[in-house]
This record gives sequence, structure tokens and C-alpha cells, in this order.
Amino acid sequence: MISRMDIEAASKRIGGYIRKTPVISLEPGSWGLPCRLTLKLELLQHSGSFKVRGAFNRLLSRQVPVAGVIAASGGNHGAAVAYAARQLGYYAEIFVPEVCPVVKVQRLRSYGAQVTQVGAFYAEAYAACERRATETGALMVHAYDQAEVLIGQGTLGREIDRQVPDVDSILVAVGGGGLIGGIASWFSQKARVIGVEPEQIPTLHAALAAGRPVDVTVGGIAADSLGARQVGQLAFEVARQAVNKVVLVEDEAIQEAQSRLWEALRIVAEPGGAAALAALISGRYKPASDEHVCVVVCGANVDLETFTRLPG
Amino acid sequence: MISRMDIEAASKRIGGYIRKTPVISLEPGSWGLPCRLTLKLELLQHSGSFKVRGAFNRLLSRQVPVAGVIAASGGNHGAAVAYAARQLGYYAEIFVPEVCPVVKVQRLRSYGAQVTQVGAFYAEAYAACERRATETGALMVHAYDQAEVLIGQGTLGREIDRQVPDVDSILVAVGGGGLIGGIASWFSQKARVIGVEPEQIPTLHAALAAGRPVDVTVGGIAADSLGARQVGQLAFEVARQAVNKVVLVEDEAIQEAQSRLWEALRIVAEPGGAAALAALISGRYKPASDEHVCVVVCGANVDLETFTRLPG
Ligand SMILES: Cc1ncc(COP(=O)(O)O)c(C=O)c1O
Ligand SMILES: Cc1ncc(COP(=O)(O)O)c(C=O)c1O
Repeated sequence: MISRMDIEAASKRIGGYIRKTPVISLEPGSWGLPCRLTLKLELLQHSGSFKVRGAFNRLLSRQVPVAGVIAASGGNHGAAVAYAARQLGYYAEIFVPEVCPVVKVQRLRSYGAQVTQVGAFYAEAYAACERRATETGALMVHAYDQAEVLIGQGTLGREIDRQVPDVDSILVAVGGGGLIGGIASWFSQKARVIGVEPEQIPTLHAALAAGRPVDVTVGGIAADSLGARQVGQLAFEVARQAVNKVVLVEDEAIQEAQSRLWEALRIVAEPGGAAALAALISGRYKPASDEHVCVVVCGANVDLETFTRLPG
Repeated sequence: MISRMDIEAASKRIGGYIRKTPVISLEPGSWGLPCRLTLKLELLQHSGSFKVRGAFNRLLSRQVPVAGVIAASGGNHGAAVAYAARQLGYYAEIFVPEVCPVVKVQRLRSYGAQVTQVGAFYAEAYAACERRATETGALMVHAYDQAEVLIGQGTLGREIDRQVPDVDSILVAVGGGGLIGGIASWFSQKARVIGVEPEQIPTLHAALAAGRPVDVTVGGIAADSLGARQVGQLAFEVARQAVNKVVLVEDEAIQEAQSRLWEALRIVAEPGGAAALAALISGRYKPASDEHVCVVVCGANVDLETFTRLPG
């Protein structure tokens, strides 16, 4: 299991490379919610998502071979690895599936990475990436199922703890589970950690029901960020002990959350970045009136043209 | 003159109604700048700009007649007055010029205000508003030239002072001067306050050169937020004593600043909201290498479709 000391050490290791992102507290009664609400604006992070935390932690913990680094990703993890590699002076090769939006591919290329687009969803891109890694000997940075990655994402939990010391519960979107695994490892029952998944990609929900990670079908508007086919083994172990609940949200609720963030705060969040808020707005997660809820708004990489066409 | 005590009192008065907006520090070397850089994300404020600070302070300091409140505005001030009026239960009538973008008119209407669009720029809308105020007896909330408004905007200076205690200089966009007047009143030489204006609307620059507020022509992409024809008398008096410098920026630099904010932070800023950053990026303001600069990013109300078409 991952300890707070691991996360403290990672925080020191990556501190010079990542942004301490701000939080903002919303006024009582916002969006008709009874609870106190704070948003963690992690979408202001380098590369537009929290993923640089895990990427830097992995790259700074390992010897990187001359072949450089390699990763498979729905898009954000790849952008993070490419960004971190460029900052540290390594060659990066990234595999993304067809579902990866143009804006993410562009971002990857702008960071100087070698990009290959292959397969429908993350799992297919991952398989291609693994084959290539065996060929080249590059250091693989897994999108979620490596201890250094979970530990890196855990630094986000540590930051929330300092910025919102009286937090009662943290809502976190789940794909492969690296983010929630890291955050839950930090809090380990000192605050409630709630996972949020699209109805169409219930990886953690299905794993907890089955008692082990199992395949789910992948689809819907958040598939480019939450579209792992299974939750990772490491995250699953953490979640069993330190995640209090998993709720599922519909794609419409995610879009509604994107619209609300734009209306109320002029924040542009991608579907995966707005999913956690969708749990509150749709009523799938019902907070108590004195509960202080922190919602992690964790990704911003959406095509503006797609965003402009949001319903409502 | 406005004192810190006035601003402290306003801060208490409006504290329950406005957001404490976050700051974010950028990494050394960002955008090739030598200085330390912190952004004050005031565009996350209610109604999408700092203008609610002055609006609430005026409305909460005065007896509001049954005719309600009335204001003229390029858009943001009107939205702020409409928002504040709705929160406090008053009727609001707002006059905006043709230059006011659709998104701002929609926002005004969504807050329940009675909206009249008249004249090319702010000055013409203001004249119509004054006539109407005489008819109805509604309480006028000036966009910049009233003490309560300056004092309200000054609470932003107080917030920066607490959030960035070692700040050396603050870059502030100037239209009618309410914002810089408030901020400079707070700092009054304890930190350098630098005004930034579009080349096409140099109200404060021209006033300081002439020794009094004088008319300038109004044009360019920031005319809906910085498009006053003259700087206000109150702001002018403050600026003479407590503003260290005024720099002018080209529209292209403003667009470049908008693009940089989007690229690096996924922040959508309107032209007036990005103008202060443009001074740094264009080199019109040259900070020292050990200088800690705070840039006020003060407005977000841009049509997404216009934003999507930004060059670069
Ligand atoms: C914006 C965003 N949110 C959430 C997630 C889910 O993270 P994890 O796969 O660690 O569960 C991702 C993963 O790419 C993401 O990009
Ligand atoms: C976004 C934005 N920035 C700056 C200003 C300038 O403020 P002031 O008129 O107080 O100088 C305005 C005024 O509307 C604005 O809307």
C-alpha cells in the first residue's frame, strides 16, 4: 500500500515542476445544493490535467534509457508524459486511440512527442504501446497502474488537505483509477473519497461488485479520459479500503456540469473533468447540509468547437 | 481620497456576496519572462468580472428607491449591477451600447434586468441612461466615477495584498479607471501599480499627459470593456499620486495574451481581461528579474465563437 510518506516524498520530488493549483469556494446554495462546496481547479495544471503529477513522479524516480519514455493514453496522460519528457530532456513516444480528440493530438505534438494513433479506445492503443516498448526498451509510464503514478496523483490529495483542511468528502472522477487511488491513499478514511464514473464506463463500480477488476464496455462522451476497460489492480486494492462510495452519472449530467461550470465560473472543463461535479448536480451523490464537499475539476482539454456546441 | 479603512469596511460589507477569487503562480521562465509571475483570477468572479465588487458596495451603502437601480455599461458593469440587484431584490435597468457583445446582453437578461441597447459606445449609452434616471428616480450605479464603486474595486487590491504578500507590482487594465483607482488606493505606493490601456483607448495616458481627463477616440477589440471616452475624475486624482506608470498595448498583443492564457492554462479571458498580461508579453512593461508581478485577469465575458476564431 501507498503511505503518506511516499506521497510527501513525491511532493518534494515533483514540486519544482508542477503547479499548485488553486481552489475556489462557492457561495452557499450554489446550484441549489445544500452543502458547502469547494472546487479544486486542477484543470489549470500543466498540460491541462493532473496527469503531470504521476508522469513527473515516475520519470524522476527512474533511470530513463536512451530510448526515452513511452506511454499509451486517451490523450491527457500522453500529453502529460510528453510535457514532462520535454521538460526533463527525454524523447517521448505516445500511443493514442481514435477517440482521442484533435485538440489532444495537437497538444501532444506541440510538446514534441512522436504520436501514433491506433485502435478505437485506450486498451488497443495500450497493446500497441506495449509491443513497441519491448522493441525499443523505452521506459513505460503507465496511465494508472504503477505505484509511482498513483503516488504522484496522490500529491493532489495532499494539496487538497492543506487548502481545504475541513473537507468532509472529495468527489473524484475514475478511469483507470490512478487519480482516486492516489487521493484515497492520502486521505485513507480521514475524509470520505467518492468515485464518480460515467454509466457507460463503470470500471471501479464493476470491479467492486465482482471483487476484482473486470472488463467493461467503453463508450460515451468521456471515453477519451475515463475510457479504460478495467480499473487498475493497484487502484482497486486502495479503493476497497479507502473509497467510500462509487456513483454513476449519465452523459447528459456531465454535459450539464460542463455548462454550469461555464455559466457560473467561465471554466472550460472537458467531460472527464466535469464528471465529478455531475454527481452532485444530478443528485446521484447527495451531500448532507453541513458537509464540506470538494470536487476535483481535473481536465480542460476539450475542443472549443465541441464545447461551443454543448446543449443548454 | 479613499483610505484603506474605507476599503476594509467595504470588504466586510460585500464579503458575503462576492467570491474570494484564487491566484495562481506561474513557473519561472513562463512565456520567456524574467520575473516572478502571479495571476489573480478575478475572471472567476460572479458575473464574470470584478465589477460586482463596486456594484454591491454601492447598493449596500445606499437607500435604494422603489424605482430600483440603473446603470450604463459596455456590458460587464451592467451584468454586475443586474446580478447584484437580483441578489438584493431590486429592479434593474441597464443601458448598453451597440459594441456590447451578444454574450453580455444575454447575461444581462438572464439576471432579469431590463436592457436597452443604444449608441455606438459607452458614452452614448451613458447619456441615455442619465436621462432615464432623471425620469424614474432610480439609483444610478456609475461604471467607475463614484467613490463607492472605486472603494468596492479596491477590495480586489486588498485581496491581492493578502494572497501575494511579497508582490512588487500589479498590472491593471484601465477603462474608466475604477479598478485601478481602487487598487492604487489600497496600495498607495506600497507596491507599484501599473495601468495598461489599448493603444486605441488611452484614457488615463491622455489624462496624465494633459493634466486632466480628456476625451479620446474609442475603438479596437477591447472597446466593450475598456471603452470609456474619458477616465473618471476620481480615478484620475488617485492615479496622479499612486499609479506608477501607464503602458499602451496593441490589439494584436491583447489577442496574443488571450491565446497564451488559453494555451498555458485553459483560461478564457475577454480582451479587457487579458490586456494587463499583454503589457508583459509584448515587452511594453519590462519587469526586473527579481520582480514579483501580479497580473489581474479581470474579465471572462467573451463569445466562445469569437474566442475560437482567435488568430494563432
Ligand atoms: C480529465 C481526466 N479526469 C480523470 C481521469 C481519470 O484518471 P484515472 O485514469 O487515473 O482514473 C483522466 C484520465 O485520463 C483524465 O484525463
Ligand atoms: C474586464 C474588464 N477589465 C477592465 C475594465 C476596466 O475597468 P474600469 O472602467 O474600472 O477602468 C472593465 C470595465 O468594464 C472590464 O469589464
